[in-house]
Amino acid sequence: MNTPIYNRVALIGLGLIASSMFWAIKRGGLAGTVTGYARSAETRETAREIGLCDEIHDTAAAAVKDADLVVLCVPVGVMGQVAADIAPALKEGATITDVGSVKREVIDAVGPHLPENVHFIPGHPLAGTEHSGPRSGFAELFDNRFTLLVPVSGSDAQAIADLRALWEGMGARVEEMDPDHHDLVLAVTSHAPHLIAYTMVGVADDLRRVTDSEVIKYSAAGFRDFTRIAASDPTMWRDVFLNNKDATLEILGRFTEELFALQRAIRTGDGDHLYDYFTRTRAIRRGIIEAGQDTDAPDFGRSKVKT
Amino acid sequence: MNTPIYNRVALIGLGLIASSMFWAIKRGGLAGTVTGYARSAETRETAREIGLCDEIHDTAAAAVKDADLVVLCVPVGVMGQVAADIAPALKEGATITDVGSVKREVIDAVGPHLPENVHFIPGHPLAGTEHSGPRSGFAELFDNRFTLLVPVSGSDAQAIADLRALWEGMGARVEEMDPDHHDLVLAVTSHAPHLIAYTMVGVADDLRRVTDSEVIKYSAAGFRDFTRIAASDPTMWRDVFLNNKDATLEILGRFTEELFALQRAIRTGDGDHLYDYFTRTRAIRRGIIEAGQDTDAPDFGRSKVKT
Repeated sequence: MNTPIYNRVALIGLGLIASSMFWAIKRGGLAGTVTGYARSAETRETAREIGLCDEIHDTAAAAVKDADLVVLCVPVGVMGQVAADIAPALKEGATITDVGSVKREVIDAVGPHLPENVHFIPGHPLAGTEHSGPRSGFAELFDNRFTLLVPVSGSDAQAIADLRALWEGMGARVEEMDPDHHDLVLAVTSHAPHLIAYTMVGVADDLRRVTDSEVIKYSAAGFRDFTRIAASDPTMWRDVFLNNKDATLEILGRFTEELFALQRAIRTGDGDHLYDYFTRTRAIRRGIIEAGQDTDAPDFGRSKVKT
Repeated sequence: MNTPIYNRVALIGLGLIASSMFWAIKRGGLAGTVTGYARSAETRETAREIGLCDEIHDTAAAAVKDADLVVLCVPVGVMGQVAADIAPALKEGATITDVGSVKREVIDAVGPHLPENVHFIPGHPLAGTEHSGPRSGFAELFDNRFTLLVPVSGSDAQAIADLRALWEGMGARVEEMDPDHHDLVLAVTSHAPHLIAYTMVGVADDLRRVTDSEVIKYSAAGFRDFTRIAASDPTMWRDVFLNNKDATLEILGRFTEELFALQRAIRTGDGDHLYDYFTRTRAIRRGIIEAGQDTDAPDFGRSKVKT
């Protein structure tokens, strides 16, 4: 058994990330007691039923009382309100972090509500599935995934070290990053791809009405992967786009520009342009496999390969 | 042991699909002898080395001699030339099929070269991985996947029934479809999504040059799935787009229109529009799972989940 890093951890919001954090914390023996709070009574009831958290409280303030670490696991759009709710109940010297997919807006929304005597260290685990809610978590979600910490100026070194140790204890690889840079990198690797997947699935759905569900029936590789992305939590993603507006729109602008160039190549029959472009993108895949963030098992388009 | 459906099958082109067909035919005892031909001497050598096909021939004409079924497994752009090469060597009464992702252009390119005394039944297995080449095949590739047969007018009923039995014997679910309708459905479910994934990965690659490979390092869920799609064979996909130009451009036009509407919702802060759109696309995922074309295991963004 490890020595716990924190005596008492509070998880505010009990969806995929919080529930996975709970199971990962328990797996690693990383905290003494983990408390939880969710706005919805139904979610709190589910949490009690499945043993999610050592204590479930009916108010956020009660959940954070005496906590050494408070983790905000709510959609980005309500982070500021939740921070205001818990601020008076925070323990002196506690660390406050979050798991939001956007960092600049969260810092601007949460920071002003927090008292001087706590440590605010925003964070973002780069992990998820298309499922959501308190039943969707599992202890292995963060294993070998990156978690980005985005300390604000003047963050306490020991507080950062403890939070890093917690994430590493949950299996993650931890790096620090500046908030604006974080938001740009995520706009490319996650936010823009999600919006594009949502869009393509929406187009197909329109067409489905005239082709008698063939689009679903014949959802071969390609479209099927898009539907998986486009099944992610609507509230979370609405808030991501509204709160990382500039970076997302910038990347989408570049995307549209490139797409138009490829469309023109198709229209004019410029096969060399297409071939060169596709050859270049194929090489990028190799880089990702070498970075250890995926395998080269041929599971594209197939959930299981029995080789 | 089943009774073989064909005495002699010729596979022309020895990539992912042909090599998977060979192993699936052997698994099911569906043919007496399977011959193979590839344009590249290196590919033929590899095939001989790994035991791919019972006989490897150095010309397409030699491979198709006496074959009861000839399967064209070459990129769509060279189907016509290959058909011209093999036409004089075809056995009377043989069935000629193909596995191309586009059907109208293949029919127009191949049909005119074939003699009157053979049966031409175009086909398209909706299965694949991001790997290619003679070593990439495996017997299970077609299991529970759809194969679409696109008979031309006057196709012989018995010839269709035999080809259907072959695909079913390889594990596929077989349906018939009109060529133009096939091309439209595939533009939505496969061709447009591939072009979009290629585009997004290309944009990220441009940005990668200024962010020191962070884009690859932090390729969270979303982008990583795109790179898998964008790792598919460049020659095959160039030919798909050039040969299904109209349907692909039509779908891309609709996609751009929807994307602009979502971009505007982000820019103006219209959260309801985004939320409603994302809720609708989430429901589509459920339809695909119910259609049996994927599972709801939470593998989005993760290659393995150890629950």
